[in-house]
Formats: sequence, C-alpha cells, structure tokens
Amino acid sequence: MQNLPVLYIGNKNYSSWSLRAWLGLRVAGVAFEEKLVPLRSEEWHAKAPVFSPTAKVPAYFDGTKTIWEALGILEYIADSQPDTMLWPLDIDVRAIARAVSLEMHGGFGPLRSSMPMNCRKSLPGLGRGPGVDKDINRIGETFKMCRTQYGQGGDFLFGHFSIADAMYAPVVTRFKTYGVTLDPIGNAYMETILGLPEMKEWYADAAAEEWVIDDAEVK
Amino acid sequence: MQNLPVLYIGNKNYSSWSLRAWLGLRVAGVAFEEKLVPLRSEEWHAKAPVFSPTAKVPAYFDGTKTIWEALGILEYIADSQPDTMLWPLDIDVRAIARAVSLEMHGGFGPLRSSMPMNCRKSLPGLGRGPGVDKDINRIGETFKMCRTQYGQGGDFLFGHFSIADAMYAPVVTRFKTYGVTLDPIGNAYMETILGLPEMKEWYADAAAEEWVIDDAEVK
Repeated sequence: MQNLPVLYIGNKNYSSWSLRAWLGLRVAGVAFEEKLVPLRSEEWHAKAPVFSPTAKVPAYFDGTKTIWEALGILEYIADSQPDTMLWPLDIDVRAIARAVSLEMHGGFGPLRSSMPMNCRKSLPGLGRGPGVDKDINRIGETFKMCRTQYGQGGDFLFGHFSIADAMYAPVVTRFKTYGVTLDPIGNAYMETILGLPEMKEWYADAAAEEWVIDDAEVK
Repeated sequence: MQNLPVLYIGNKNYSSWSLRAWLGLRVAGVAFEEKLVPLRSEEWHAKAPVFSPTAKVPAYFDGTKTIWEALGILEYIADSQPDTMLWPLDIDVRAIARAVSLEMHGGFGPLRSSMPMNCRKSLPGLGRGPGVDKDINRIGETFKMCRTQYGQGGDFLFGHFSIADAMYAPVVTRFKTYGVTLDPIGNAYMETILGLPEMKEWYADAAAEEWVIDDAEVK
C-alpha cells in the first residue's frame, strides 16, 4: 500500500493555520495522514525545522516534496486535483474568492492578536477594541457580500465549500469563543461552519488535548 | 477605443504592495491605466473606500469588477491570461512558487515594520535587530533555494519572471535602501531585479514624487 501524504499540524485547540489546511483537505475528500506536533514542545523544536522550511505548521509532504503555507497547500490541491472544486469554477468569482482569502491570509492583525483561537474556551466580551471591531465589521461585510452576491442559494460563501470557507473557519471559532455575533446572514453562515461534521471532529479533538499552553501566551 | 483596466496605487516611494501588482502587470505586458492616489491625502480619504472594498491599494478595476490584494490581482491575471506566464508551468514548481509568495504575503513582520520601503533614501545599517536579521536570513535562503533548484539557469527565482519575483521586489528595494547584502547568488538576484527597466522607471517616478510622508510614520 502506498503511503498517504502527511499533513503536519499543531494543537487543534490553538493552531488556526492548521485548521485552515486540515479543514480544506478533509471537506475536499483528500486522504492524508495527520501528524500533530504540540506547539512549543521539545518534539516541536526538534521536528518543525525538518518538516517545513519555515519551521511552521501546517506543512504538507506528498512523498516527494513539501508544500508550506496553509493557503499554498490548498492552492496546490485545487491545482493538482481540480475535482475537489476547492475554488469557484467561474473565473471572475474565483478572483473574488481569492481576494477575500488573501485578505484573511495577510490581514486582520488586531483580531488575530486580541482574539487568539481557543476552541474549548468561552470568553464572551473579551478582546474587543477599536481595531478588533473594525476587523469584525469588515468580516461581517465580507460574509454578507459573498453570501448575497455569490452564494447561489448555498450555505457557503461561494455556493459550495471553497478555500475561502477554510480560510475564515478559524475566525468563526474565534467569534464563538469571544461571543461575537453578526447580522442574520453572518450568524447563519457561522452556524453552517460550526455544524460541519469535520468541525465537530476538530472541536472534539481540541477538547481532548492534554497539552495546554498558558492561554495568556497564545497569539 | 475601449477603456483600459485601471490599477489604483499609492505613492511609488512608499507603497510596497502597489509595486508588487504594478511590476507584475508591467513585466507581464498587461496594458492598464495607472491611477496614483497619494497615501493619507484628502484625495485618498475620499477615493480609497470607493476604489476598493478594503480602502487599500492596490486595486484593479477591469471595467466590470474590482479585484483587490496585490497577490489576488496577479493571480487573476495569471488565471485569465495564461500567456503572461506569471506562474511556473510545472505544477510542482508552481506550488513552491506560491508557497514562497504566500510566505511574503503574510509574513516577515519585523522586516516590514523596521525597514519600510523608501526607494529614494539610503539608510545603511538602520533597522537591524534579531527579528529583522531572522527575516533577512530566511529571504536569503529562499533566493538561494529558488535560484539553485528552480532557476533553470535564468536570472529570476523560477527561471522566467513570475509572481514570486513581483512579491519579493519591494524587499529588494528595502535591502538596497538599508544596505543589506546577501550571498553572491542573492546579490546577483537583487541586481537582476533592480536592473529591470520597469524597476528603473518606478525608482525615477518615486524620486520625482513631490508629496512626502514623514518617514518616521511610514510602515
């Protein structure tokens, strides 16, 4: 039997970039072996520089080469396995899906630093501030714009599940943890993401993780 | 005559994201009209929320839709005009090119905040520190890895000019401004980028800009 590709990830409770790649691969039906290396552990310090040139998660090893960056891994799957339909088929819609995905990839710094992913905690009201509120508003607008203009009556941002949904899934977990609600369209979208069987599995695994980082330190 | 697509950019002296999109389009031979809106001017505050949903540069309007995020614009051109060859043709090499491009898109925070792009200044030695040095080392490794493993004897990171070169071009200008040198392979690559006729045009325009931001404020 051939070896499966390997996806290296960090703690499910904390690692938002791991979730993006993992969720995209899982929903797309890509078979892979998952290797979880606890962040900041001795194992992490020994292995991270070996499994990725950036010493970061996620990293995807297909047997001959390593792909890094969550969005880079998902782009590679979309490129090499087009049947996964990880991007919208329409070229103009795909351009919008990439723009919102890249906005998430490189932006929303205040939200990411003030509301770190922490799946098993409930911290409503924590982390708010002007920069964070601006990020929340922009994300709410994005959900609404995508669902109304490109949602095609489906439950996801661009009709069927796409890389854009994978990119925003960790934000949805943050909104749940920190008690952020949006307009009805945004709230319905968050329920869709949190209701995915793959997300329920991720949450269950996160809750069961023994290894705990001092929450104050996690960004 | 049909109207050309419009690329909205900020000051050429300061706006690294503008340079990425502009350089990629120009080297790829895409015809477009350039609209420069000076950052933080009255014109900026009036126009930015109109020309882009993120109120940021660059933004690309093709007559019917707006694409935002520098990498998103270049991905759209690569997708809709494959003859531009903006990505490597080999699917495995393209995956590496995307990974290094995304690493630039979302990372190197210390370098970006300590060595803001400032084409017309010479500030050798300024901005160094442990985080910045780590970024410089990683970028030097990337240039070396790409040129030796994927350069195909050409002058660029992946043989012919690609989006990866556009993504790293502003870093090359920073290394010039702040007097950062690399190994011989990296230094030769920097000379290639700085020697492009399009880069010389950008530098000349940057030097001629009347509008000046207080350098201490530019990040």
